[in-house]
Amino acid sequence: MKNIIILGSTGSIGVQTLEVVEKLDDKFSVLALACGANIQLLKKQIEKFNPKFVCVSNEKDALELQKEYKNINFLFGSNGLLELAKLDEYDTLVVATSGIVSVKAVLTAIEKKKTIALANKETLVMAGDIVMKKARENNVSILPIDSEHSAILQCLNKIDNPNAQRLWITASGGPFRNNSRDEMETFGANEALKHPRWMMGKKITIDCATLVNKGLEVIEAHHLYNFNYENIKVVIHPQSIVHSLVEFVDGSFLAQMGVPSMHIPIQYALTYPERYQGIKTNSFSIFNQKLEFLEPDYEKFPLLKLTIDCGKQGGVMPAVLNAANEVAVYKFINNEIKFLDIEKIVFDEVGKANNIANPTLEEIFEVDRLIREKLG
Amino acid sequence: MKNIIILGSTGSIGVQTLEVVEKLDDKFSVLALACGANIQLLKKQIEKFNPKFVCVSNEKDALELQKEYKNINFLFGSNGLLELAKLDEYDTLVVATSGIVSVKAVLTAIEKKKTIALANKETLVMAGDIVMKKARENNVSILPIDSEHSAILQCLNKIDNPNAQRLWITASGGPFRNNSRDEMETFGANEALKHPRWMMGKKITIDCATLVNKGLEVIEAHHLYNFNYENIKVVIHPQSIVHSLVEFVDGSFLAQMGVPSMHIPIQYALTYPERYQGIKTNSFSIFNQKLEFLEPDYEKFPLLKLTIDCGKQGGVMPAVLNAANEVAVYKFINNEIKFLDIEKIVFDEVGKANNIANPTLEEIFEVDRLIREKLG
Repeated sequence: MKNIIILGSTGSIGVQTLEVVEKLDDKFSVLALACGANIQLLKKQIEKFNPKFVCVSNEKDALELQKEYKNINFLFGSNGLLELAKLDEYDTLVVATSGIVSVKAVLTAIEKKKTIALANKETLVMAGDIVMKKARENNVSILPIDSEHSAILQCLNKIDNPNAQRLWITASGGPFRNNSRDEMETFGANEALKHPRWMMGKKITIDCATLVNKGLEVIEAHHLYNFNYENIKVVIHPQSIVHSLVEFVDGSFLAQMGVPSMHIPIQYALTYPERYQGIKTNSFSIFNQKLEFLEPDYEKFPLLKLTIDCGKQGGVMPAVLNAANEVAVYKFINNEIKFLDIEKIVFDEVGKANNIANPTLEEIFEVDRLIREKLG
Repeated sequence: MKNIIILGSTGSIGVQTLEVVEKLDDKFSVLALACGANIQLLKKQIEKFNPKFVCVSNEKDALELQKEYKNINFLFGSNGLLELAKLDEYDTLVVATSGIVSVKAVLTAIEKKKTIALANKETLVMAGDIVMKKARENNVSILPIDSEHSAILQCLNKIDNPNAQRLWITASGGPFRNNSRDEMETFGANEALKHPRWMMGKKITIDCATLVNKGLEVIEAHHLYNFNYENIKVVIHPQSIVHSLVEFVDGSFLAQMGVPSMHIPIQYALTYPERYQGIKTNSFSIFNQKLEFLEPDYEKFPLLKLTIDCGKQGGVMPAVLNAANEVAVYKFINNEIKFLDIEKIVFDEVGKANNIANPTLEEIFEVDRLIREKLG
């Protein structure tokens, strides 16, 4: 029986993680849940999974919940997250929060030699050097909850596989794959977000359209698997069936494929290196699949190259790019700017930034804060 | 340094095995070579690889070679193959002979706990139960030299992977994939063998056209990986880039892909579980690939189902099918019969056969001999 803590339990990944846990309830027990302000959903989760500890964003919610559930220890805020990470009686910390709120909790869990199942992008994009250095020092596994990085791990079979020589990250190509730059020039949020989506979905949708998302995944892959940027490639695969590939030194390729569901990567991160029959098994058929693979157009999507370049430069540059991009994307979603203005804002901010070599976590957070303040 | 013995060194797989060995000459040393009658090529191989033992088909060749190469021990015939298998100072026996000539040598090598790198189809098709029982008793690995079974092993990562639930063997679909049964009715050897090929190539080409080849691979996969026939599927993949796939219990698929070259499977069988940079690395590009996967048409290719059914029945039935098919295919190649007559001959022979439960090797060989005698 593995004890797990889920940070971000009421978000999309948190909810799906609990679905996996429910299906494999003979293998997992929930020690603690942490969420923001969705108290109604949290209560349902508490009643179903009986955690010993629960952390919410603000003190008021914590106090009210404490009255209702006397046998649970309630915590709140970023200190509450740190307290959860400091607990002894768990095996895996599932990090499904967004933004930088959990970075310190991750570092604390690594010091306690706990396995990290990581769905949060900022942890590695902004603080990859710091987090991975500590993980290596403590011999801790950082297991990705993300279809591309999980695919790579499944192909590698173990995190440090000396027989792998190149990683191939697949990208759908986004909604504007077949549009010209001239067409993109005219696009506003309505064109980019044809279907109504909740807020986080909108941000990711735009990052897919600019391919920034894929550049950030290249940075994460660099940190997770300790590969040089030269050996991490992006390949456009519009069908999104192959979730990524690994090329080995002998010229052989392994590809992981399946339905585009998060249940498999979530479950694999929890059960690695074993696998169990979980949810949604057998829903994929290889018959009648037609799979295409194309070279990305770096001229049409210059932010892809810029994002990877920021990764190569390291220091605070990935944090600069990430913050500028996030502010620009929200401006776009709010119809304040046009699609190609995202590029202009990000290129401008990256161009003006002064890099810091080997920054501390505080320096990285400060860069992030300053850019958001300035552009926001 | 691994010492290897190659049975069938002058055939296509034997020659390519020596190319792999030459490229990785710091890792492999050739202890012995065995071939049939291609003495000219054998001499070149002797001079390049300096084996201590050499076996040829007939005594006369052995005696003449012995005069020329005084420091080498020459052997001949099937007893010579057995003597090679009995040697102590080798690690891997590469079996690249055709037919049943090496089956006893394989069993001897297994008793000596040597690794078997197996390119020969008959060993497992005809005697899979006997060979695999002995391999399990002696804890010996049978590593396939065959693109499909190597692909499966690469996806499994280890021979007994409890997390795998289904094997998917890819098939190009053969030259008549898009022809109707009516069209096939008219086909003779000229239609089936449009490009001149050497003799072994012709046999395999026809087995691809009838899909018997794929049925035999299903039987081999059943023995190699100890999977029930229900969990071994065939999928048509005309591009022959994905060499096979494994479906895991959690619904995830791994696929192995690359150029259709035998160097990768040969090298993987020699270096398993490690990989090294060998020949032909980097010649495959994922860009601009379009990969299709289709369900096989068992009604159009009834020999595929019959072959798998013979595998399910076990006993001597796979040997019956294999012998009848081989005789029929050579009749077809020699323009004695039409394409669909292959089916008639094989169905007729399988229908008339009396199965033997748990046959001995001698009983299997006798069934093989009798069918060839009768139909030949």
